[in-house]
Amino acid sequence: MKVTVCRKEHFNAAHRLHNAGWSDEKNQTVFGKCNNPNFHGHNYELIVKVSGHPDPETGYVMDMKILSNVISENVLDRFDHKNLNLDTDEFKDLMPTAENIAVVIWNILREKISKQLELKVILYETERNFVEYPAD
Amino acid sequence: MKVTVCRKEHFNAAHRLHNAGWSDEKNQTVFGKCNNPNFHGHNYELIVKVSGHPDPETGYVMDMKILSNVISENVLDRFDHKNLNLDTDEFKDLMPTAENIAVVIWNILREKISKQLELKVILYETERNFVEYPAD
Amino acid sequence: MKVTVCRKEHFNAAHRLHNAGWSDEKNQTVFGKCNNPNFHGHNYELIVKVSGHPDPETGYVMDMKILSNVISENVLDRFDHKNLNLDTDEFKDLMPTAENIAVVIWNILREKISKQLELKVILYETERNFVEYPAD
Amino acid sequence: MKVTVCRKEHFNAAHRLHNAGWSDEKNQTVFGKCNNPNFHGHNYELIVKVSGHPDPETGYVMDMKILSNVISENVLDRFDHKNLNLDTDEFKDLMPTAENIAVVIWNILREKISKQLELKVILYETERNFVEYPAD
Amino acid sequence: MKVTVCRKEHFNAAHRLHNAGWSDEKNQTVFGKCNNPNFHGHNYELIVKVSGHPDPETGYVMDMKILSNVISENVLDRFDHKNLNLDTDEFKDLMPTAENIAVVIWNILREKISKQLELKVILYETERNFVEYPAD
Amino acid sequence: MKVTVCRKEHFNAAHRLHNAGWSDEKNQTVFGKCNNPNFHGHNYELIVKVSGHPDPETGYVMDMKILSNVISENVLDRFDHKNLNLDTDEFKDLMPTAENIAVVIWNILREKISKQLELKVILYETERNFVEYPAD
Repeated sequence: MKVTVCRKEHFNAAHRLHNAGWSDEKNQTVFGKCNNPNFHGHNYELIVKVSGHPDPETGYVMDMKILSNVISENVLDRFDHKNLNLDTDEFKDLMPTAENIAVVIWNILREKISKQLELKVILYETERNFVEYPAD
Repeated sequence: MKVTVCRKEHFNAAHRLHNAGWSDEKNQTVFGKCNNPNFHGHNYELIVKVSGHPDPETGYVMDMKILSNVISENVLDRFDHKNLNLDTDEFKDLMPTAENIAVVIWNILREKISKQLELKVILYETERNFVEYPAD
Repeated sequence: MKVTVCRKEHFNAAHRLHNAGWSDEKNQTVFGKCNNPNFHGHNYELIVKVSGHPDPETGYVMDMKILSNVISENVLDRFDHKNLNLDTDEFKDLMPTAENIAVVIWNILREKISKQLELKVILYETERNFVEYPAD
Repeated sequence: MKVTVCRKEHFNAAHRLHNAGWSDEKNQTVFGKCNNPNFHGHNYELIVKVSGHPDPETGYVMDMKILSNVISENVLDRFDHKNLNLDTDEFKDLMPTAENIAVVIWNILREKISKQLELKVILYETERNFVEYPAD
Repeated sequence: MKVTVCRKEHFNAAHRLHNAGWSDEKNQTVFGKCNNPNFHGHNYELIVKVSGHPDPETGYVMDMKILSNVISENVLDRFDHKNLNLDTDEFKDLMPTAENIAVVIWNILREKISKQLELKVILYETERNFVEYPAD
Repeated sequence: MKVTVCRKEHFNAAHRLHNAGWSDEKNQTVFGKCNNPNFHGHNYELIVKVSGHPDPETGYVMDMKILSNVISENVLDRFDHKNLNLDTDEFKDLMPTAENIAVVIWNILREKISKQLELKVILYETERNFVEYPAD
């Protein structure tokens, strides 16, 4: 049976939910306060889960220090203290909802973590709102 | 792949565990302090998880404000600050254990949330005791 | 300078806020859902703080295992899984608000802990509502 | 002896630390990532503490529902989902550090809460960075 | 559909990561600070999840008091306040990584809990590093 | 009025409570499981509080990044992943109770932080046991 190792990191970012193909009125109706033109922000808590078989010599599925470094270099350096709409390529044309941010992070990390390991991402936008990708 | 969005809410309620078909002695043996005839209570923390594909126009699987409202109107208004045994129809003849409360909440919400979305409920009775329905 | 040692415990209880000298209407106006005649309940998180000089031989201000036992025997055994209004002497004629529960617990513990040690109580009624006694 | 009642609320906002009287280079040196011109953001957790004597008729120092409403109307409605630098009068010419935000919130609430009650504000900018005003 | 009941417990222990088949230099390179010859330690938070059908008479999948006792007698009494490398049989020849500790605990509990119930273990080594066994 | 800024850090360490001037029996009676000769360990959560007047140019009482670095260099580098009894000078002849560890950390930091700023330390040994120095 496989074991899952999980590492929690965080980053802070600003964002705005706005669909450029819609009227201002429709944006306001659908996104409410999240549509504020001057942005708002969050402390994002990110949990990355990696599943596989522990190495008999180390007892590790994946060294969590290495996992932490992979997340820092590929996710935190890219998004921490950034405006997701203005400062990143990923959300130039993609709505920076928690759902989409989680998918983007999963796609970034999938390239950096051994294909023999399964990958899952949990992203807390607030303590009461969070998403998981992929769904169980 | 699907994304899961999760919303955390809470309610406070009183309850008592008592099987009317048993002797007082057996109730006391099985349920211990939870059998106190004058009730005790909990702060219930409820996490509702909804899984599906994000809408390309909004980036939402389901708008968490709407999900929050659905939970408030259908679960919190019904159970918050209530005595589960005396003030609700659902637990007139059903033991209000965390297991059964979670199943009842899932059944209530299943009627209110699009059938294209999968649904799961997690209910914390205390910080150390919690249940999930359905099991993975 | 003195050191403060703090011990966190918890208990679950039912209660109702109701002033018998008032009309039902006034009780409902002032206490709202907390006035429900069939009670509701909470997971109370209790932090007891004791301040003094560490003993040079043990390094302890007060052994936290002993502090934990004092709280269990004098507070938890009395209030855990109880209906504060119906099952206790302390709240027969005293409103079981978080404020009054904290004062009652402080008075109980003050008798059981060395007078050379200062005492403070913090009581969480919910994660978002809590009280401290005495105030700083 | 007085009792303190505490209410926890939260809001999300964007901000930027930038001293207009300094060069860009000095701003970057002092504020680092917090100087990002396109802003970043936080989930601010706010604890408001009010100290006084419980009313004998209600057992309340101050009804926490009323306290919650005062905070919502005067603080959350003003700052939630806002850009503190661009969308508020308070931080037009004042650095929106956690320290200054706490002082601003205290000054706003001091006008709205009875002068017979003492007031203190705790503001979490992240789980690891928080401020208290006034200091003990 | 099945329900999962979850019980959270904790224990404190010392450990060291060291592969006796490797040079000191390789151990230091791979395990870093975790290789300190005099040990370091953790507060381990353990969540045990048990899935099955609630008993119609009790409303319980498994009484959480009984589950708590099973964990205490079989896991906490064995590992709490122990040096995992020196004081236990399980880790005499097995690296006490979080992954391996979780597998060992699962194997211990699997013998003590009805085979009709599914079992899963989550182990927090720190707030930011945790493992799950078996993986979903 | 002064503002307090607070920074939370953590370290993991092993320790043992043992008074060399006592018999083994008395050590066992007083310290119980904490007297285990092979040590046990904890995740220590450390909150450092610094009080003073915000600088008008930065809005900072003390830059929390600098405060974090001061704690890392002077406390974490010294105690993280160490055996407090064997690997440190501070606890060679001083019982490594939470009380004494907090006093030692306060004394270390007091030398490194401006005398115009007041200093307080909170140390969590477990989620349920913590100490504050100096007491309020």
